[in-house]
Amino acid sequence: MAEQGITPRDQDFSAWYNDVIMRAELADYSPVRGCMVIRPNGYGIWELMQSGLDGMFKETGHQNAYFPLLIPQSFLEKEADHVEGFAPETAVVTHGGGKELEEPLVVRPTSETIIYAMFGKWIQSYRDLPLLLNQWANVVRWEMRTRLFLRTTEFLWQEGHTAHATDEDAQTETLLILGLYRKFAEEWMAMPVLTGAKTDSEKFAGASRTYAIEALMQDNKALQAGTSHHLGQNFAKAFDVQYQTASGERDFVWSTSWGVSTRLVGGLIMTHSDDKGLVCPPKLAPIQVVIVPIWRKDEERDSVFSAAGEVEADLKASGIRVKSDLREGMKPGAKYYEWEGRGVPIRLEIGPRDIADKQVMLARRTGGKDPAPLAGLAETVQGALEEIQQHLFSAALARREARTRRGVEKDELVEMMNGDGGFAYGGFCGKEDCENAIKDATKATIRVLPDEEFQSKETPKKCAWCGETSQVEAVWAKAY
Amino acid sequence: MAEQGITPRDQDFSAWYNDVIMRAELADYSPVRGCMVIRPNGYGIWELMQSGLDGMFKETGHQNAYFPLLIPQSFLEKEADHVEGFAPETAVVTHGGGKELEEPLVVRPTSETIIYAMFGKWIQSYRDLPLLLNQWANVVRWEMRTRLFLRTTEFLWQEGHTAHATDEDAQTETLLILGLYRKFAEEWMAMPVLTGAKTDSEKFAGASRTYAIEALMQDNKALQAGTSHHLGQNFAKAFDVQYQTASGERDFVWSTSWGVSTRLVGGLIMTHSDDKGLVCPPKLAPIQVVIVPIWRKDEERDSVFSAAGEVEADLKASGIRVKSDLREGMKPGAKYYEWEGRGVPIRLEIGPRDIADKQVMLARRTGGKDPAPLAGLAETVQGALEEIQQHLFSAALARREARTRRGVEKDELVEMMNGDGGFAYGGFCGKEDCENAIKDATKATIRVLPDEEFQSKETPKKCAWCGETSQVEAVWAKAY
Repeated sequence: MAEQGITPRDQDFSAWYNDVIMRAELADYSPVRGCMVIRPNGYGIWELMQSGLDGMFKETGHQNAYFPLLIPQSFLEKEADHVEGFAPETAVVTHGGGKELEEPLVVRPTSETIIYAMFGKWIQSYRDLPLLLNQWANVVRWEMRTRLFLRTTEFLWQEGHTAHATDEDAQTETLLILGLYRKFAEEWMAMPVLTGAKTDSEKFAGASRTYAIEALMQDNKALQAGTSHHLGQNFAKAFDVQYQTASGERDFVWSTSWGVSTRLVGGLIMTHSDDKGLVCPPKLAPIQVVIVPIWRKDEERDSVFSAAGEVEADLKASGIRVKSDLREGMKPGAKYYEWEGRGVPIRLEIGPRDIADKQVMLARRTGGKDPAPLAGLAETVQGALEEIQQHLFSAALARREARTRRGVEKDELVEMMNGDGGFAYGGFCGKEDCENAIKDATKATIRVLPDEEFQSKETPKKCAWCGETSQVEAVWAKAY
Repeated sequence: MAEQGITPRDQDFSAWYNDVIMRAELADYSPVRGCMVIRPNGYGIWELMQSGLDGMFKETGHQNAYFPLLIPQSFLEKEADHVEGFAPETAVVTHGGGKELEEPLVVRPTSETIIYAMFGKWIQSYRDLPLLLNQWANVVRWEMRTRLFLRTTEFLWQEGHTAHATDEDAQTETLLILGLYRKFAEEWMAMPVLTGAKTDSEKFAGASRTYAIEALMQDNKALQAGTSHHLGQNFAKAFDVQYQTASGERDFVWSTSWGVSTRLVGGLIMTHSDDKGLVCPPKLAPIQVVIVPIWRKDEERDSVFSAAGEVEADLKASGIRVKSDLREGMKPGAKYYEWEGRGVPIRLEIGPRDIADKQVMLARRTGGKDPAPLAGLAETVQGALEEIQQHLFSAALARREARTRRGVEKDELVEMMNGDGGFAYGGFCGKEDCENAIKDATKATIRVLPDEEFQSKETPKKCAWCGETSQVEAVWAKAY
């Protein structure tokens, strides 16, 4: 076992983040510039995320498909904003099969262009709508400064692409997905999020409107954790995706796209983990419970192993993801240390005396250790997992609220953003000049124009920066 | 609904294959050279394949991980056979982020090289072994002649990569996986396969030994459906992956790699389908049962819809993948035609008279239609699905056996391979010259040196080609 110290959070958050990842063996640097390797412990979290999200997408009528990785460069150029946004970030294949290609191929940074080329072929009439597709895939965006999970040249994600008969249908879809993303963040990741629209300067290249979920990390910086775009008829027009309406006319489809990525794993880490390593919400923990048998004498070994085996079988039968750590020649304390670092929510210790008392010791990764009777143990453990899940959400929510200021004006905004950070709610005049001035002065950006539920009771009257009449409430933060 | 005729199998097998794919909407041609789009109906089959295989891998101790898509060109060059085999097929990224790269990056054709670069970092001692990883990923191999699912420039696959302390352990792993592949082909795909070793000329570029599962398609050509490679210490030496043995010495690890791909979907299609379209084995059918309500008068509509709803809920509760086709303005016959083309194993028809008789009509995609009582319907359907699964395997096995000849000599081999094809078993002297001469004369290759279970009772004494002493029995076929 590689012993690796963890830098304390309050000393160097960025170093802490990397240390947590290394200690938990979630990912590793690769010899390929800007690309990471996702190790089994990290990939296991991503698989559970995929499974949760995929279930939600399918329940709401979406189907998975798969589109080519390589996209002709000319496709990218068909939508003006899109190419402007993505062209500088692309990786370009110029040679294939030993020859120079006639037209270079771009490794997809996102798949709108290739997908709309196919939509044009598949969509004929209103009866073909809505078309609700999703793809699990890798994408490549050339990044200068990379960070494990948060910003890598290649990353894994899902990208949904849907086509609709009307503007309203597309808007409904855009918000449906935003709602699913929020539900997933809150209920699976135990990560509270704000929802709302992006300003024009922060929206997706090619979208009419972009909505996002935004979370606040422990260093009081915001993480954009998922986006849902109403694409209007922009791509439909660029790729001539028309359909025959019920009344026999021809119209362009209205469409959406939306995605979350392996960045979510970074968000999970930065929301819950501590100076001992990863803290993983039970619903996304590949191992929810680790059993550590404790013995001194050889004759005790057999009985604790056998008791551990019975507990393991019992929990497994209840659908709990459990593992027994039967390694010999390793002290219990060293095992505790390792499993804590890996973020396993519950540890069960079983020694000879526990067996005599018909109990185990139940230790929570989030603190606390108590005896739990063997009788009804699966139920006890299930209850504890749910409590931990709920506790993590509540703690993260309380932390966010403690770092949220409402009705900020210029001085407070500057002080906050140049100080400890957090979410600052204030009035916004709607001018890009103000947005830019704030960014220049504080590095903070408007994360969202918050949805009604998140808006302040007192609607701000003046722009937090220029003091002119506020058009809309905005939330500022420094962001990843 | 696009009406599309299907060319009969015996008229043009290749056109039939494409027609089946188009009718079932499994895949489509993309505007990107050599790359296909996998549509939801096809991707649904692949998802079920993934789920079945992934379960088998995890049960045998393998974990999923993810490695970079882009590999420095120099990595590929570290193993001499490997680069020779793959370099001509690569797609090469020469530009990233708007600049020419110092070193070109290859889009992975397979991931041995990048994975062994990481193994070198992770493996220190015998305690780190075995290391049993798998990756679900896309790969790119530049292909001149492509066919949907069977041979495309980009395809989806899983690639397992394992490292072991001894030659024997790696051999055991190689054969374990070969066995899992066979089990999956037989029990999930209902596709009988031969297992055995490849000759040196057919083995994987960089492997010491390659094993494969080989199936016989309906046109009597073989399909290599999965391969499992014993890599010896070849990659370990190329990437300096050494470990400390239990006795304190240093040694290179022994390793394996193995994969199956979306090609399996092509194998499934060519094994079972008929002139009406796709026939999908129930275990891999995204929709196992379609319910078609039949009504004439409006007052009948409500009662058949409600009965359909009850049947659907009943089957769903039993874990059957079921869908009701409630489209109006479409005749039942048109629906039957569409669902047959899509390969749904069972169709349940419910009309007013069936409701009165407390039954449904149960039609099998493989033929036959009988009434089935509503009472105990889920069980009846489950039984029928199992029968269909078994029937498809038996039929495919019988077909293969009918197209298998044993103890072939030169004339019969030539006649067979230049005629209707099939599997030809015969003696083999072991010389590459004979292998090449047969290939030149018949286009047939040695598919495998069959494992004991598949060998002929009478061991051939002479080489089928040169007549010299046979060293080993071989199976020839023309292949995809």
